[in-house]
Amino acid sequence: MSQRKLFLLPGDGIGPEITAELVKIIKRLNDRKNAGFEIEEGLVGGAAYDAHGVAISDDDMARALAADAVILAAVGGPKWDSVPYDVRPEAGLLRLRKDMQLFANLRPAICYSALAASSSLKPELVEGLDVLIVRELTGGVYFGEPKEIIDLENGQQRAIDTQVYDTYEIERIAAVAFELARTRDNRVCSMEKRNVMKSGLFWNQVVSRVHEEKFSDVTLSHMLADAGGMQLVRAPKQFDVIVTDNLFGDILSDVAAMLTGSLGMLPSASLGAEDPATGKRKAMYEPVHGSAPDIAGQGIANPLAMIASFAMCLRYSFNMTAEAEALEAAISGVLEQGLRTGDIMAEGCRKVGTSEMGDAVLAAF
Amino acid sequence: MSQRKLFLLPGDGIGPEITAELVKIIKRLNDRKNAGFEIEEGLVGGAAYDAHGVAISDDDMARALAADAVILAAVGGPKWDSVPYDVRPEAGLLRLRKDMQLFANLRPAICYSALAASSSLKPELVEGLDVLIVRELTGGVYFGEPKEIIDLENGQQRAIDTQVYDTYEIERIAAVAFELARTRDNRVCSMEKRNVMKSGLFWNQVVSRVHEEKFSDVTLSHMLADAGGMQLVRAPKQFDVIVTDNLFGDILSDVAAMLTGSLGMLPSASLGAEDPATGKRKAMYEPVHGSAPDIAGQGIANPLAMIASFAMCLRYSFNMTAEAEALEAAISGVLEQGLRTGDIMAEGCRKVGTSEMGDAVLAAF
Ligand SMILES: CC(C)[C@H](C(=O)O)[C@@H](O)C(=O)O
Ligand SMILES: CC(C)[C@H](C(=O)O)[C@@H](O)C(=O)O
Repeated sequence: MSQRKLFLLPGDGIGPEITAELVKIIKRLNDRKNAGFEIEEGLVGGAAYDAHGVAISDDDMARALAADAVILAAVGGPKWDSVPYDVRPEAGLLRLRKDMQLFANLRPAICYSALAASSSLKPELVEGLDVLIVRELTGGVYFGEPKEIIDLENGQQRAIDTQVYDTYEIERIAAVAFELARTRDNRVCSMEKRNVMKSGLFWNQVVSRVHEEKFSDVTLSHMLADAGGMQLVRAPKQFDVIVTDNLFGDILSDVAAMLTGSLGMLPSASLGAEDPATGKRKAMYEPVHGSAPDIAGQGIANPLAMIASFAMCLRYSFNMTAEAEALEAAISGVLEQGLRTGDIMAEGCRKVGTSEMGDAVLAAF
Repeated sequence: MSQRKLFLLPGDGIGPEITAELVKIIKRLNDRKNAGFEIEEGLVGGAAYDAHGVAISDDDMARALAADAVILAAVGGPKWDSVPYDVRPEAGLLRLRKDMQLFANLRPAICYSALAASSSLKPELVEGLDVLIVRELTGGVYFGEPKEIIDLENGQQRAIDTQVYDTYEIERIAAVAFELARTRDNRVCSMEKRNVMKSGLFWNQVVSRVHEEKFSDVTLSHMLADAGGMQLVRAPKQFDVIVTDNLFGDILSDVAAMLTGSLGMLPSASLGAEDPATGKRKAMYEPVHGSAPDIAGQGIANPLAMIASFAMCLRYSFNMTAEAEALEAAISGVLEQGLRTGDIMAEGCRKVGTSEMGDAVLAAF
């Protein structure tokens, strides 16, 4: 049985607590199924800054690159609000994405029926919601140069960020979206601002060409990103797969996540290209929620998004579909049992802490 | 009594129909109150393209610049989907904004209580909602250079857009937001992505400095734009005034608009700087909804956002506060009477067409 190298980055805030629950699940898979997961842990974000003065050390970066999959909990917190820009906690996350070339960010917005009532939307609009946002993650305004603040001759300052997309960057993310659509309802909606951005116009053209050349069996539509934001709020169930750029994806996937009413439940996967020689792809998995410094260390954080992120890891990095489904079923199961952490607490349910929730998933798994 | 020059740009789609209803209101003000409004009409968008091959002619642009206020209905439609980029319908709108230097876009997201049930959010979350989004409108990625698609040596293409903000651009929009907050609940939330964009970091710094120097009586908070999108969906009533850049403002104001459940009701104002000599400012007023080509010419479009835009015009361009309030009360009044155009139709209400709705407002005004 092959070894499977996992690199865990608990990060900051509630990160360590929810990572501990995940470790229980991983060990169970090793014990029961002889899954052969090897766990290493590293530092990222504020934790790395405190230890090494950077948002991720070169050494941990190398270990991330060598792993079969990275699982990151969350970074950031008020403690590091005034550290220098280049070593702020988010820089660790951005370096992992860039150095591992994780260009495809998969962010499912799924509404667990046990939680539909906690959405701010009317339940009938979100019940059964299952939208997959495919966000480009290594390009656009996040990394384009120039990116600077300069002094002008007139005594003013000027800030500049640059949105840059090359053909291949749009081609590969479009292909990921179309491929995933084929495993779902076979529909992709591409979002950009072609009416004001050249990169939007270009995005639209490249996505359309990739569709025509290789994926004409998939239904493709286009929507302006502002209209897309509206439509997500108005009738989110109209979408199957949404593909969009790094910055629009950041905002629209957060809007979509909030529609489900349970941010604490949502996982994400960030994938690189498949290595043609080995068939493997670099990958990092993360819950969508943040580091929640306000509740850190109290044992009350919700570990379910972290565990659901590992289910995505089983599916996308290790092709362990049955185990992924079993883990997802275990998560739904504990919700159906009425167990809730504080963030998703509802009338008539039983409030549990982080480790009790983790144990409940373990028992149902 | 002074003349008041209005320049009307009906534009495309339902634009002419809803403009006709507005003209009735303007004439009524002239007749009853001797308001002295002079109306000129021009072409913008597809209508201008069909007539002159451009999205707005120099002649109409000059008339817009000479007017006391411009009122634009809507531009665009499938008919012009493949005209050259520089003369697409939106280019007319963008030229008006830029040449008139309309840097401050005021987009109120107000939920009329008669319509709260039609929001996709739970009624208690939107009932009484009154958020004002102040969007920067002449800078950022909309106008920054370079903005181009270039051929690379490797056979690929590259699209580039540039987000640029100078100190003064942020200072003046921040001042508008703080001043407006003082007339409301005295709270401003500034949104950017300082964790990934230099312009976000800069935006945050300049807004904070303007606040400290001149508006420390106003409560200022900062939120990342993605978190802002989430919070708008989760609990929109937490906000009073939101100030943000051109692109984030585009998306977030559309999300906020959709929360109210009645896009067909929402006006906007785009304002320039006050001329120190005359105390006047250039201004353009527009409904937030689009040109709705699918229902154009059928006499069923909702004219209320157009009429509400004129109420903003009375308030901001002519200081006619009493008349603005009377007009807004007339709009609420017809809703309370149960009159509805198709887009806001609800059980137990009476469905009316464009001109019947206009006449009802006139009768209630
Ligand atoms: C933390 C931040 C840099 C990051 C981003 O903007 O991409 C986050 O919002 C996300 O969506 O993963
Ligand atoms: C039509 C388009 C150019 C415009 C924009 O992006 O600003 C519109 O979406 C708006 O919000 O006024």
